[in-house]
Amino acid sequence: MFDFSTRCERARTLMGERGIDALLASVGSDLPYLTGYHAEPSERLTMLVLPRLGEATLLLPRLEAPRVVERPDVFALRPWDETEDPIAIAAGLCAGSDAIAVGEQTWSVFVLGLQRSVDAAFRPAAPLMRELRMRKEPAEIDLLRCAAHATDRVVARLDGASFTGRTERDVARQVEAMVVEEGHDVAWGAIVASGPNAASPHHSPGDRVIQAGDTVVVDFGGTLGGYHSDTTRTFVAGEPSDRVTDAFAVLAEAQRVGRETAAPGVPAQQVDRATRAVIDDAGWGEFFVHRTGHGIGLDVHEHPYLVEGNDLALEEGMTFSIEPGIYVRGEFGMRIEDIVAVTADGSESLNRSDRSLHRVS
Amino acid sequence: MFDFSTRCERARTLMGERGIDALLASVGSDLPYLTGYHAEPSERLTMLVLPRLGEATLLLPRLEAPRVVERPDVFALRPWDETEDPIAIAAGLCAGSDAIAVGEQTWSVFVLGLQRSVDAAFRPAAPLMRELRMRKEPAEIDLLRCAAHATDRVVARLDGASFTGRTERDVARQVEAMVVEEGHDVAWGAIVASGPNAASPHHSPGDRVIQAGDTVVVDFGGTLGGYHSDTTRTFVAGEPSDRVTDAFAVLAEAQRVGRETAAPGVPAQQVDRATRAVIDDAGWGEFFVHRTGHGIGLDVHEHPYLVEGNDLALEEGMTFSIEPGIYVRGEFGMRIEDIVAVTADGSESLNRSDRSLHRVS
Repeated sequence: MFDFSTRCERARTLMGERGIDALLASVGSDLPYLTGYHAEPSERLTMLVLPRLGEATLLLPRLEAPRVVERPDVFALRPWDETEDPIAIAAGLCAGSDAIAVGEQTWSVFVLGLQRSVDAAFRPAAPLMRELRMRKEPAEIDLLRCAAHATDRVVARLDGASFTGRTERDVARQVEAMVVEEGHDVAWGAIVASGPNAASPHHSPGDRVIQAGDTVVVDFGGTLGGYHSDTTRTFVAGEPSDRVTDAFAVLAEAQRVGRETAAPGVPAQQVDRATRAVIDDAGWGEFFVHRTGHGIGLDVHEHPYLVEGNDLALEEGMTFSIEPGIYVRGEFGMRIEDIVAVTADGSESLNRSDRSLHRVS
Repeated sequence: MFDFSTRCERARTLMGERGIDALLASVGSDLPYLTGYHAEPSERLTMLVLPRLGEATLLLPRLEAPRVVERPDVFALRPWDETEDPIAIAAGLCAGSDAIAVGEQTWSVFVLGLQRSVDAAFRPAAPLMRELRMRKEPAEIDLLRCAAHATDRVVARLDGASFTGRTERDVARQVEAMVVEEGHDVAWGAIVASGPNAASPHHSPGDRVIQAGDTVVVDFGGTLGGYHSDTTRTFVAGEPSDRVTDAFAVLAEAQRVGRETAAPGVPAQQVDRATRAVIDDAGWGEFFVHRTGHGIGLDVHEHPYLVEGNDLALEEGMTFSIEPGIYVRGEFGMRIEDIVAVTADGSESLNRSDRSLHRVS
């Protein structure tokens, strides 16, 4: 489906422009983007060495070799045995390079090892790789849309659910099962944050039993064909307080304004400013404690980030979350999150499930 | 339950002996080992800066701060806001350090950023941290035993299962659900590898339908109180071939010999040699393509590794897998894996489920 050879050629072109002789992709998504092969984080080194000139080599533990779809037009395979030193092999493949770019998530132990073995300048690969990865191909957006719609079906199924009297953990397990049932390959651990716990944006679901009157933030997703979904809806068990109702109206308006703002040519930070202004103006500004969104694709968080200070102009094909939240410590929390794709003249929300405050029993 | 303050003091003592001025712990398990706080891998930096002298600081994104159990005797908390530069803050905390040790899994983007900001020698922290982490405290072994026994109960439940006609993915989902039902906090993705797929040690379970006569390698586990389980049993759908029966007898003997060999004072590589000798002598040596085992604790793979070339003498309190396998490409695969703890005079297998070739329908 994807043309890895062309992607590698585009990477080589950028390497030439930026004076980079070799690009190293290990764990994270640069590797599957360039080769179609995904490596689990491991103390056993997997690394694509992509020289600006010459053949690319995928170095990996021999026991992982059967997992590789071989693509001789893209890379040569170099399995290493348990008694070999993979750093020495990678260093050999980098020999003669003056400037080496290293994938963002590569473990420090490998970078420090290579620095001892190769006399070169080491730089982050992210500024180069983001140029390729943040402008999605149509087939990538198709997969992101499929994944988003699968999460939309989960939201619809949750509308009939009962939350009161159940633990956060129990609801999280149900949501994760639904994520797979609706078509994802895997679910990542759902956030289910209830009552005062909902004021912690990245709360780990635990043994707290959901009570009548709680807001419950449910943030979930998974991967489908390697591409991520990520959506958040806020539920209320029984009747919301007036304060929750008021805050939610502000949040929903902020999220809508964010989606309306996203368009080609608009700076990323402008989307953040637009959502924040709505929340600030209504007096809840101090409770919106994070950026408005993050890019999404092969990684659940990637460029572009919608945050103050990022003046990158959005372009058609960029995909990211728009997810303002309001978090009042000790009291409640709420968030609305959609994945949005920039189109030729605006943006499309890939998520279409009901964004209102969902009433559950 | 754990004395983080004492652990940090022990780290400082080793830092003094090795001339390290600051230790940086980010994603991975050095951080929870030293502070009780676990950070998910993220583009937002979380980092403990532990100076040899002076107060430790846990730097983390403000939105994660509500997740932290504060321990003022162990670390000061320094949440950073979305518009701050966490590398600059970390660099400030490292000011004056000549030698800095970096946790193994820290992302390259942060290491390269710090190297641009701090004029110091950067070294891997693993040689120091492994000295602390690979000798388990009794409470750590208790948790590993609890987790191992939970997986043993899953094996017992699988004995009544039917595999034939189901996909690998379907069996994997069932196993993962059982891992949680039997007491883990979370399950990691199970390996279910059937028929020729079983010859790939780290096969990702897919849509292959299990056939009569297949061997099925089921490798699974999860975490309980932060500590990992990891066990493998081999199943056969219906009747095994003579070749499978013969190979399995050799494998079971090799695994038993491995467990018998593990004892205080024995070099780690000696356990690998002992299992390998049994398999080599029976003529299956070329099909045992990986090391015999890996340490386990807060990480599923950590020191000590049971591999040729590692002459580390085992000590009471060390915990690791013993997991020989036989993998015949295009034909079948098999593995038996237990977690073992070294005792005062030998070793204890924390896993006690039936190690034989499990017949399933």
